[in-house]
Amino acid sequence: MSELKAKFLEVYSVLKSELLNDHAFEFTDDSRQWVERMLDYNVPGGKLNRGLSVIDSYKLLKEGRELTSEKIFLACALGWCIEWLQAYFLILDDIMDGSQTRRGQPCWFRLPKVGMIAVNDGLILRNHIPRILKRHFKGKPYYVDLLDLFNEVEFQTASGQMIDLITTHVGEKDLSKYSLSLHQRIVQYKTAYYSFYLPVACALLISGENLENHLLVKEILVEMGTYFQVQDDYLDCFGDPSVIGKIGTDIQDFKCSWVVVKALELSNEDQKKLLYENYGKEDPACVAKVKELYHDLKIKDIFLEYESKSYQKLIKDIEAHPSAPVQSVLKSFLAKIYQRQK
Amino acid sequence: MSELKAKFLEVYSVLKSELLNDHAFEFTDDSRQWVERMLDYNVPGGKLNRGLSVIDSYKLLKEGRELTSEKIFLACALGWCIEWLQAYFLILDDIMDGSQTRRGQPCWFRLPKVGMIAVNDGLILRNHIPRILKRHFKGKPYYVDLLDLFNEVEFQTASGQMIDLITTHVGEKDLSKYSLSLHQRIVQYKTAYYSFYLPVACALLISGENLENHLLVKEILVEMGTYFQVQDDYLDCFGDPSVIGKIGTDIQDFKCSWVVVKALELSNEDQKKLLYENYGKEDPACVAKVKELYHDLKIKDIFLEYESKSYQKLIKDIEAHPSAPVQSVLKSFLAKIYQRQK
Repeated sequence: MSELKAKFLEVYSVLKSELLNDHAFEFTDDSRQWVERMLDYNVPGGKLNRGLSVIDSYKLLKEGRELTSEKIFLACALGWCIEWLQAYFLILDDIMDGSQTRRGQPCWFRLPKVGMIAVNDGLILRNHIPRILKRHFKGKPYYVDLLDLFNEVEFQTASGQMIDLITTHVGEKDLSKYSLSLHQRIVQYKTAYYSFYLPVACALLISGENLENHLLVKEILVEMGTYFQVQDDYLDCFGDPSVIGKIGTDIQDFKCSWVVVKALELSNEDQKKLLYENYGKEDPACVAKVKELYHDLKIKDIFLEYESKSYQKLIKDIEAHPSAPVQSVLKSFLAKIYQRQK
Repeated sequence: MSELKAKFLEVYSVLKSELLNDHAFEFTDDSRQWVERMLDYNVPGGKLNRGLSVIDSYKLLKEGRELTSEKIFLACALGWCIEWLQAYFLILDDIMDGSQTRRGQPCWFRLPKVGMIAVNDGLILRNHIPRILKRHFKGKPYYVDLLDLFNEVEFQTASGQMIDLITTHVGEKDLSKYSLSLHQRIVQYKTAYYSFYLPVACALLISGENLENHLLVKEILVEMGTYFQVQDDYLDCFGDPSVIGKIGTDIQDFKCSWVVVKALELSNEDQKKLLYENYGKEDPACVAKVKELYHDLKIKDIFLEYESKSYQKLIKDIEAHPSAPVQSVLKSFLAKIYQRQK
């Protein structure tokens, strides 16, 4: 484990212990144990990329200057707030999707003792974020900006999730609803803001920056988040299951994936008919037909072209940014995801 | 309809229209329609007591001084934030409890088109609160206090809900877990803070008061909220179904009600055994046995004594408060609930 990750996990223990002794609520022994188990099960078990990137970004922004251990602690705390936010969304997404597993273990709500209490556990996680912020940031000049930031990004994420749920689940399965612009909108709101913009925005705030002066950074990160999700959609269909660690089911699940949206755009009438008839079906023969069509339409090549163009555009936009430390933050993000295989 | 309620409902329309045109999110037509329908179904259909009491309280606090229509609008907006908070909790509570109806119509998640999307709709409602606060209060000297207040009260409510869920649903049905102090803790956190303290705290903030100077007000309102919930528990068992508008099922549902907790306290070993064997069962014969025991233990009389003692204690505490306008706010609250039959 890297030194940074070890430090980051140490801060998790501190935050957890503070939350379990929060004076705004008198725990019973049972409820304190419940929250501890729920946190350990749901919060620290992921790759922690979003959380760690707050600290990475902060270090790059402050390059050359001294970083007190207090400042590093604050960056870690904000990183954990993002991980808490993610855990909250994942618990509830899994309930809504009826999922079985998450991060290699049963979904929290699948545990026999938990069940629908998981809904409230999701809310508890969400409510921990302002508790952490109040304890460690109240009185800082940027405290209100942090609250506004988390509120806005959570609103955007829930709104993106809403369009995704409505288009995927409400009414008949109708591919004519799917388009690149709808895909872009879902991805931007559901994933890009909280996964890409939020970590950097947190780093900017603790560096003393005003977020209103960084609209360009937001734009670039949303673009990068979109590129990231397109990769995700691509890997779900074409990635190596032994590398990505799961077998994709976007075709069966009637997902508004970049792959199907691109295929629709490129299809002639016969090919469209094939898609309409076979997309969103469990039958392996249907899935195979869809994949064959993707092959005929050369979706792999089109993705590679998209990837290379996105990369060039992002590099160009980043290099046009006036601040060298901000450039290095953005380039570091991009380097982590460019041509990823998982 | 009272003039005040008409004004309050007008403000609902304004807030709704602002939320449907929020620039932080690009709605699709479908998602805008979805949110509008979801709001109309879930937010304004209750008694609106909590929301209206912000305005009542604010008027009493400002007695004698002029109230601009802008100030009244702000009080209404905060009242609606509490109604939004309540709607968010109710949607998710109904899912967790597997309820059928709410406010005389099917629960939102029971609608065929909605289902589990209701979980995300709950989150959307919750996320509307900071959107409303930001639009109308950003820049006010008490903006950050409002954010902190709503965050703290939401945390307390979710935490109270957690102990309720854990004690009622996890493990075997075991009455030995139930006690007056557990009941008090559930009620205080799950109901009293958001239903009683929050409306008055909102009124105090827009009146320019610092909440740290009003810890006594908080204490009294939490006490009043506890009294309110004890009434609720009592009416569930002894109220007239044609007056309260529903048939109580706390006995069948194994609820940690004041009534059962009091009965446990007063029971001898045989009576305890009867309770252990019959509480939390659907069988009408079991319910009848529990009710008979309540009769033998004279729970009705004990409630009437509790009610009268609580009232006297509250009046005494209120009259010890140094501020006359604050006294009138608290007395007005108490008058609304004392000896209520529904």
